[in-house]
Amino acid sequence: MNFELNILGCGSAKPTTRHNPSSQILNVRGKFFMIDCGEGAQSQMQRMGLSMMSIGHIFISHNHGDHVFGLPGLIGTMDLLGRTSELHIHGPQQVGELIDFLLHTYYGDIQYDVCFHPFDTSSSALIFEDRSITVHSIPLRHRLPTCGFLFREKPGLPHIRREMIDAFGIPVSQINNIKAGASWTTEDGTVIPHERLTTPATPPRSFAYCSDTVYLPELKDVVRGVTLLYHEATYLHERLLRAGQTLHTTALQAATLARDAEVGRLCIGHFSASIKDEQALLDEAQAVFPNTILAREGLVLQV
Amino acid sequence: MNFELNILGCGSAKPTTRHNPSSQILNVRGKFFMIDCGEGAQSQMQRMGLSMMSIGHIFISHNHGDHVFGLPGLIGTMDLLGRTSELHIHGPQQVGELIDFLLHTYYGDIQYDVCFHPFDTSSSALIFEDRSITVHSIPLRHRLPTCGFLFREKPGLPHIRREMIDAFGIPVSQINNIKAGASWTTEDGTVIPHERLTTPATPPRSFAYCSDTVYLPELKDVVRGVTLLYHEATYLHERLLRAGQTLHTTALQAATLARDAEVGRLCIGHFSASIKDEQALLDEAQAVFPNTILAREGLVLQV
Repeated sequence: MNFELNILGCGSAKPTTRHNPSSQILNVRGKFFMIDCGEGAQSQMQRMGLSMMSIGHIFISHNHGDHVFGLPGLIGTMDLLGRTSELHIHGPQQVGELIDFLLHTYYGDIQYDVCFHPFDTSSSALIFEDRSITVHSIPLRHRLPTCGFLFREKPGLPHIRREMIDAFGIPVSQINNIKAGASWTTEDGTVIPHERLTTPATPPRSFAYCSDTVYLPELKDVVRGVTLLYHEATYLHERLLRAGQTLHTTALQAATLARDAEVGRLCIGHFSASIKDEQALLDEAQAVFPNTILAREGLVLQV
Repeated sequence: MNFELNILGCGSAKPTTRHNPSSQILNVRGKFFMIDCGEGAQSQMQRMGLSMMSIGHIFISHNHGDHVFGLPGLIGTMDLLGRTSELHIHGPQQVGELIDFLLHTYYGDIQYDVCFHPFDTSSSALIFEDRSITVHSIPLRHRLPTCGFLFREKPGLPHIRREMIDAFGIPVSQINNIKAGASWTTEDGTVIPHERLTTPATPPRSFAYCSDTVYLPELKDVVRGVTLLYHEATYLHERLLRAGQTLHTTALQAATLARDAEVGRLCIGHFSASIKDEQALLDEAQAVFPNTILAREGLVLQV
């Protein structure tokens, strides 16, 4: 099943020719969850062949321009493309001012509903749930109220062992019961335990997005063991003072968090425009947490 | 002297991978005048090596998203780049709502002033003037109050004929007087008329921007004889009905206006996303007005 991260932009506020501002698409079984929406996000989706109509929910970390200024155009484009289904936008309450302004000033007559769901940035909460996943907010510390997001697949059912089903002649009608935990009793009364008929469920995958934030060591308990962590690494550690002043994180700090949280893989992004070659960021992070990669526009990661 | 048009975007509202939404930079002797500011304008400036800090004035034709949604990011970027000089934005009064919202919600503490100058879209007026140029609004007809813009160089002074200055031993201190129309009297009392000492001034150049609008034949008197006319040509003439419904122009109509106004050159743009190959638009226009070219992102035209 698809659980795939698409990087639309991994730059920071000051634009460069190398990066777009922050935006990502998490593709969970064909449902697109957008995370942040910097200017140019819709163009990058088109370049990557990602359909804007597949976005049901947009999660905004905070109300800085480099995380939201793609929304004005995207909302209009969805209308031009004929959208009729609701679009849900989740964010700190400040983001609601932008949505209200856009709907009032530009989009009074669009053919679909934009539903804004504010969340409290002071504590973690379940902010979305469907049959496949849960999304929890992750309180971060930045210059505005900010949250990251933790996407977790729900535990799946065990897999049926086809050869056992055939061997015992178990009818198709019983397969869902067996997946749900039932055993099977043969005609001669022998009980075949559930465990012999199935293999364990695929371990649930998880993805955490943490940007923008100063380094928060205590996040290690929140993102512990996630399959993939995207964390901002705006600066090299030699600019720790600047990172502290602007409430951003260094590459070394992001890698320290990834190591302490024992995540599967770390992807770093939100690169400062002052960084001319991100290899130095990668080297710094990999020295602490080897399984680190650099974000880049167009990157597609299987979680 | 520079009088140069830079095309940043020439698509229409529905985005494509081929075009950005509307935006241009008219470079008049190193001063940048931006015309419309669709999403991604600042990125395209960077790709073309154009400095955002050289923009003193932005002229907005109308308050549709594909002409203004680059402003939110651009205003912030100028602050990040350290701008302190005033930025002047001219547009129909509706654009003022966007500026007010941005300054109130995102840019309360930027280090420069954004000055909004609303203009009346019902009649032509002089909306800007400096030592080199004048800018007049051109009322257009679209779904919102809309104006195009007519940029005209002011008439220059005649050029000094260096060889005549040398021949008559005219001192440097007299050159400005002669440029301004004076004759020269030699020591023996011979009067050398101004016309023998100079060659005529370079004819003033002019540029007209007309987008978005339905075809307005009467514009031929407004843009008569301009050096370069940029006119929208959203559709092929086979979609005349659609053009009329949406208050846009066909390529044939744009070329008819250019021919009737006897302009020097026509550049067509604002292409519908439904047009897969703009050559058909060019063919249609050139059949009526041969000196037509297609706009494209990155195009630089000497006016």
